[in-house]
Amino acid sequence: MTGKVYLVGSGPGDPELLTVKATHLLEEADVVLHDKLPGPEILGLIPEEKREDVGKRAGGEWTPQEYTNKRLVELAEEGKTVVRLKGGDPFVFGRGGEEAEHLAANGIEFEYVPGITSAIAGAGVAGIPVTHRDHASSVSFVTGHEDPTKEESAVNWEALAATGGTIVVFMGVGKLPEYTKALREAGMDPETPVALVERATWPDMQVATGTLDTIVDVRDAEGIEPPAITVIGDVAGTREEVLEFLQ
Amino acid sequence: MTGKVYLVGSGPGDPELLTVKATHLLEEADVVLHDKLPGPEILGLIPEEKREDVGKRAGGEWTPQEYTNKRLVELAEEGKTVVRLKGGDPFVFGRGGEEAEHLAANGIEFEYVPGITSAIAGAGVAGIPVTHRDHASSVSFVTGHEDPTKEESAVNWEALAATGGTIVVFMGVGKLPEYTKALREAGMDPETPVALVERATWPDMQVATGTLDTIVDVRDAEGIEPPAITVIGDVAGTREEVLEFLQ
Repeated sequence: MTGKVYLVGSGPGDPELLTVKATHLLEEADVVLHDKLPGPEILGLIPEEKREDVGKRAGGEWTPQEYTNKRLVELAEEGKTVVRLKGGDPFVFGRGGEEAEHLAANGIEFEYVPGITSAIAGAGVAGIPVTHRDHASSVSFVTGHEDPTKEESAVNWEALAATGGTIVVFMGVGKLPEYTKALREAGMDPETPVALVERATWPDMQVATGTLDTIVDVRDAEGIEPPAITVIGDVAGTREEVLEFLQ
Repeated sequence: MTGKVYLVGSGPGDPELLTVKATHLLEEADVVLHDKLPGPEILGLIPEEKREDVGKRAGGEWTPQEYTNKRLVELAEEGKTVVRLKGGDPFVFGRGGEEAEHLAANGIEFEYVPGITSAIAGAGVAGIPVTHRDHASSVSFVTGHEDPTKEESAVNWEALAATGGTIVVFMGVGKLPEYTKALREAGMDPETPVALVERATWPDMQVATGTLDTIVDVRDAEGIEPPAITVIGDVAGTREEVLEFLQ
């Protein structure tokens, strides 16, 4: 009997933001393959003997992603119920799409269990709605560090600026100077509000705010480090209006 | 003692995709203000005597949104623990931002409790990852029916097409002919895969697929109706690769 793989999103990190389904699957699973992104609180809920960390693996015969793909198939073929736990949602910059394809190509049944993405929740817990009738008719998610195997930038910052909507950058602490410059050069107002949300919903969450012009200095002054999201757009300015009453 | 308002996302409709926190809050709340979007299964979990439907209200002295804003303040001032339950996430085309501002302006404490957005989960359960290393470096969410009080289109379809990423349209069944035309005119390949996901994760979910050129006919032939999301981009083509093994 071949087992089954569940591609499960853990949400941003607060265990209360796990879905009911994810909670049940973490109990029922024989093995949970994970990296560091679900965060210490959620990983702490999983019995040590079920946990297999596939995030640390660097070097060796396989790249980390090839190794994970291979390991998922191997465990399912042993008849195991496998949870592949991802920070946020498996299909938002989580490489869940590649894992799904690999499983299907190897004849392994799988199920996708969505999780709350930190792009939305991280902004929200900081008091920032990613869309707002008065400020943003669209929201776009991009990654701050791109696939290094691609020859040129796959992200069209000029087009993103032209949407006029909110932009949320995943994993964008390091390259903040590069893409804020690209957005200013694309004609975005340098006074556009920007917020950095580090470790959204974790006990040590940190929020820092500035503008497209000042946010790099703010990042340095406040010591913002990965993992964090960057929220760019007028909506980031509404935080001040609600902060006093936001819990 | 003034009460508190929780702006809570219900997720796409499957009760198992509620967060643990939302489940607890629905139990603890004195009153749950809701419309039809959380879906029959989730609304069915809430005792009748706690439910207050603010979605049906049309006409009268206040617009539905003004009425909801007013009612949230009123109930909190009576000392109630109030859950404002929204389909998906409160801050993604949910007008939660406006409610948060109204509450803060009236001195009412509130908390935001994120929910899984159907834009991501709806695509995912249909076998479509909204981002994919080989196909889409960004994903943008827009609404298909815009604010009628705005003089011209607030959505820049040309810029969205130029991002090269996935586009997910909320509430975009009715205006599908208009915006697929706008995207083709913006230079998007008419062969671009498109998927419609109606009532994502509900027991009667329906998926229909085509291209930017054919999807309007597909919609009519398959009888796709609101509520639904439209997923536009190469990622929609990967569904075929995984469908056989997707559960």
